[in-house]
Amino acid sequence: MAREWIELNAEILSAASVVGKKEREGPLGERFDLCDMTDRFGVKTWEAAESEMQRMALNTALAKAKCRDCDLGALFAGDLLNQCVGSAYGLLAFDVPYFGLYGACSTSAEGLLLASAMVTHGVFSRAAAVTSSHYCSAERQYRTPLEYGGQRAPTAQWTVTGAGAFVVGQAGASAEHARVVIRRGMPGRAIERGINDANNMGAAMAPAAEDTLARYFQATDTRPADYDLIATGDLGFEGGSILCELMQLRGYPLGDRYTDCGQRIYFREGQDVHGGGSGCGCSAVVLAAELIPRMRRGDWKRILFAATGAMMSPDSIKQGQNIPAIAHLIELVAE
Amino acid sequence: MAREWIELNAEILSAASVVGKKEREGPLGERFDLCDMTDRFGVKTWEAAESEMQRMALNTALAKAKCRDCDLGALFAGDLLNQCVGSAYGLLAFDVPYFGLYGACSTSAEGLLLASAMVTHGVFSRAAAVTSSHYCSAERQYRTPLEYGGQRAPTAQWTVTGAGAFVVGQAGASAEHARVVIRRGMPGRAIERGINDANNMGAAMAPAAEDTLARYFQATDTRPADYDLIATGDLGFEGGSILCELMQLRGYPLGDRYTDCGQRIYFREGQDVHGGGSGCGCSAVVLAAELIPRMRRGDWKRILFAATGAMMSPDSIKQGQNIPAIAHLIELVAE
Repeated sequence: MAREWIELNAEILSAASVVGKKEREGPLGERFDLCDMTDRFGVKTWEAAESEMQRMALNTALAKAKCRDCDLGALFAGDLLNQCVGSAYGLLAFDVPYFGLYGACSTSAEGLLLASAMVTHGVFSRAAAVTSSHYCSAERQYRTPLEYGGQRAPTAQWTVTGAGAFVVGQAGASAEHARVVIRRGMPGRAIERGINDANNMGAAMAPAAEDTLARYFQATDTRPADYDLIATGDLGFEGGSILCELMQLRGYPLGDRYTDCGQRIYFREGQDVHGGGSGCGCSAVVLAAELIPRMRRGDWKRILFAATGAMMSPDSIKQGQNIPAIAHLIELVAE
Repeated sequence: MAREWIELNAEILSAASVVGKKEREGPLGERFDLCDMTDRFGVKTWEAAESEMQRMALNTALAKAKCRDCDLGALFAGDLLNQCVGSAYGLLAFDVPYFGLYGACSTSAEGLLLASAMVTHGVFSRAAAVTSSHYCSAERQYRTPLEYGGQRAPTAQWTVTGAGAFVVGQAGASAEHARVVIRRGMPGRAIERGINDANNMGAAMAPAAEDTLARYFQATDTRPADYDLIATGDLGFEGGSILCELMQLRGYPLGDRYTDCGQRIYFREGQDVHGGGSGCGCSAVVLAAELIPRMRRGDWKRILFAATGAMMSPDSIKQGQNIPAIAHLIELVAE
């Protein structure tokens, strides 16, 4: 049982995305619900701006689902800031039980998986999953203050300024458009393969994505060809190509149906993002703004969404530790 | 539904505690499973020592439950370190799906609540909840390096060096001793009442404990007198007395059956701990080493365990933000 997938049956009632300037100028720019071209969201600090994005994303998702915060049984939320203050402060205004999560950039899938499991079994009739990241708060905390102007490595990824929120509920409630239902999930295991380069998160996270995807194909007796799209969270260009190689070696070539949210969110040429996008917000806003709406329109019927996270801290890297990574997976079906 | 308690039915199959010197010298000293009087646990950094405590605690809990890591469907784990690296590195050796949590010092109850919900509904047949804190890693991260020798405020609490691990499974599996079963849960809401003094976490967290306890009594139509013991996680002496006053005003006087894990773990006189114990490890090791074993021996039949967390970061305090707090609750019954 320990190695099995989880049976789920929870509908994504609504999804909302809030982003900054660079994301608005990327290939998905028009699709996002809200944007502030100053990246400040009307508040004084980058950390408060990140919180404000979470608040706006959840408010938008609630409005789209035509429900209020008191209709939610719980929030599952997290971000990359120390002590997850992006979520703690951002969601304080909502009068809803709160489960704080830390799965680094895998938190979007972790939250959707837990919220769906709770809804599937009737623990809550509705629940929400919310995540965020902000380029400026992440640079200050993980790397150097913006003013320092450090040069970026070619494999370094650009933290997405964005927040995504999802309201999930018992399947069958809505019929206005094709329903997107979370059918199965596979929680990730922590995997560490000797990578200690904090400028190459993609390489650290690719083996975690490989582990979760390979276990999932094996447990469910499916093949990559059974899915219309297989999306990872934020492996970027470097990590994405490593994952494709690893999956080929495991006998599960992903082929053309493979994509990565960190590869989709920016123009590779012209936006100077090196390895692609990353951050808790990356997979969340791409899922909310592109993948789910396109499933509803019939572009894809059955997709795998595996968000990937690197669970080191700046201190653990300074202390010479390698980078443990994780990938949580959900299977979404348009019905 | 959003405001209701959660029906649970998960047995605590085993509980294990690992502590440092000061905890070993406290009133519960003899009860802990493992201790290192150097607080170093054989490794080079305080952060790695915290990870090592988690590893030892889960290994001990697995041995007590007579199972192996492959028998676990998932780990629910967290700690206080930036990016929760105590858990990420400490549990890397276990080949088990991993859900990272951040609920500050409420994480012990958050993890037990989520693990129990999953087990109750058969998502996993067994799951584990693990949390830790370490005085030296917490001082370095939240306050000042030990070498600085800063003076402590009278309301300041002492972060417990300790890790607790619990294996929960479907009720009815064991019969060697009285079974301790998690029967109900109540997830907390984030509450902020204007406290911004990082040296008085008890005052920040007491209103969160009040909110969860009062909602629980109301929803379940019970009174404090229906329970043999009502234990909060780490309000300490200051927060504990504030909670008693708040509950009196709400019409639910807690009386003699109230206790706080942060008040039980150290000798108030002689151990120089000011406001009492705190940290993710505090409630976890007291629950594992004292509360559960004494329930099995018949001292208490029905208890409420509400772990409390303050979800600020050092940066959010410096930026002038108040302290949001949360309290997650589980009801345990000896059968």
